[in-house]
Amino acid sequence: MRNLKITLAYDGSDFHGWQVQPERATVQGALAEAIQRVTGVKVLPQGSGRTDAGVHALAQVASCQLDAGIPTENLQRALNHVLPAAIRVLSVEEVAPEFHGRKSARAKTYRYRIYRGEICPPFLARYAYHYPYPLDEEAMCAAAARIVGEHDFTSFAAVDPERGGEEEESSNVRTVYSSAWKREGDELIYTVRGSGFLHHMVRNLVGTFLLVGKGTLDCAGMERVLQARDRSVAGPTAPACGLYLVSVEYCAP
Amino acid sequence: MRNLKITLAYDGSDFHGWQVQPERATVQGALAEAIQRVTGVKVLPQGSGRTDAGVHALAQVASCQLDAGIPTENLQRALNHVLPAAIRVLSVEEVAPEFHGRKSARAKTYRYRIYRGEICPPFLARYAYHYPYPLDEEAMCAAAARIVGEHDFTSFAAVDPERGGEEEESSNVRTVYSSAWKREGDELIYTVRGSGFLHHMVRNLVGTFLLVGKGTLDCAGMERVLQARDRSVAGPTAPACGLYLVSVEYCAP
Repeated sequence: MRNLKITLAYDGSDFHGWQVQPERATVQGALAEAIQRVTGVKVLPQGSGRTDAGVHALAQVASCQLDAGIPTENLQRALNHVLPAAIRVLSVEEVAPEFHGRKSARAKTYRYRIYRGEICPPFLARYAYHYPYPLDEEAMCAAAARIVGEHDFTSFAAVDPERGGEEEESSNVRTVYSSAWKREGDELIYTVRGSGFLHHMVRNLVGTFLLVGKGTLDCAGMERVLQARDRSVAGPTAPACGLYLVSVEYCAP
Repeated sequence: MRNLKITLAYDGSDFHGWQVQPERATVQGALAEAIQRVTGVKVLPQGSGRTDAGVHALAQVASCQLDAGIPTENLQRALNHVLPAAIRVLSVEEVAPEFHGRKSARAKTYRYRIYRGEICPPFLARYAYHYPYPLDEEAMCAAAARIVGEHDFTSFAAVDPERGGEEEESSNVRTVYSSAWKREGDELIYTVRGSGFLHHMVRNLVGTFLLVGKGTLDCAGMERVLQARDRSVAGPTAPACGLYLVSVEYCAP
């Protein structure tokens, strides 16, 4: 029995998110099906966290225990052969038995892309949020810096009684290590790295930073939203298409 | 009555090509519907040529005569408001009454993108042809140069009795002004500019250049294929997803 760490990229546009659901195309479901086709073994790979419908990944990580004959070094190519082109396995590694995609994760990085030009190129429509209206980008940068540190992020967590945050902890305290907006040509890009993220947390943060950009909220207001621990005072959830899970970090083995 | 020149970009992935068809999503159909929604007038914009299902455009041109009150300068924004995000109007200009999207076209440029890396990023799967196998790229460059000039391109024209080339001329003689492959990082990109192109001509050229790259055909063989005027001796049609209509040139007004 091997324990495997599978790193994969996906275009989330045509999937109903990561988590397997009956009768719906999901990334976890497609990966499980591919593993079964290649090895004959039915397993459910455990992702570092769920991504919602339309959210992309540059390097999601999943783990699974596999009792199959195929050499680990052949798995990447075999899986990519049967997976849809919208999902690519970037690597497959054998890891220690205690490694778990979600439980062993120590930090994650997300990115959110906003296209600022007046006309969004059709080739970006699935991959960035088009927001061509005026924004005070400096104020957004300042607001982004305010959330760095350990905070209770309840104001930015989806109100979703049947589902906890991706870490399935009862606490909404998380540590944000870095949080910054950066202009790259016609795009305004937010990158955030943290110990973990609650359900919808990055999209709700982005929606709130947009309120700051529009002048509806000032930087002190951002701080009040954070302290309120109340979802209703934060901004709306930004669209899924702009969000990317960039990487997942684990302790050195 | 104004005569309009509409320049548009589209992601062809989810369309059954340019030309309007009953019960199917087409770019021409979507544009006609958008014009009708915005102006109340039913017209069929005439493209510079048809693009096939899955083929993209960076700057397709269409013309139509419009008898409607809306100022020309408001049309671009109004059309983009109702069009799907996969189609964007880049400009709308008033042109001389004799201007016609197809008949007035003097030259066109197409591009074909091949992704050469071993794993095609999922975000490129719709936008490039993934070909990670060995290719003699220098031989392909040499073969590309051989087709420059005025030639009968019958060997590269789709055998399609019910449909002529996009110019709807009976002759298969066209002039290629430039034809070259270029490496850009992990991509191998073919750019061809010519007086006009037969149906499937660029994709059949690319399919034949790939035979040269694989060593199945040498440069002299390329010349024989061109001279044979016989579709059956050329290579297969390369996949649609790699092809882009880059621009259409017209005489100065």
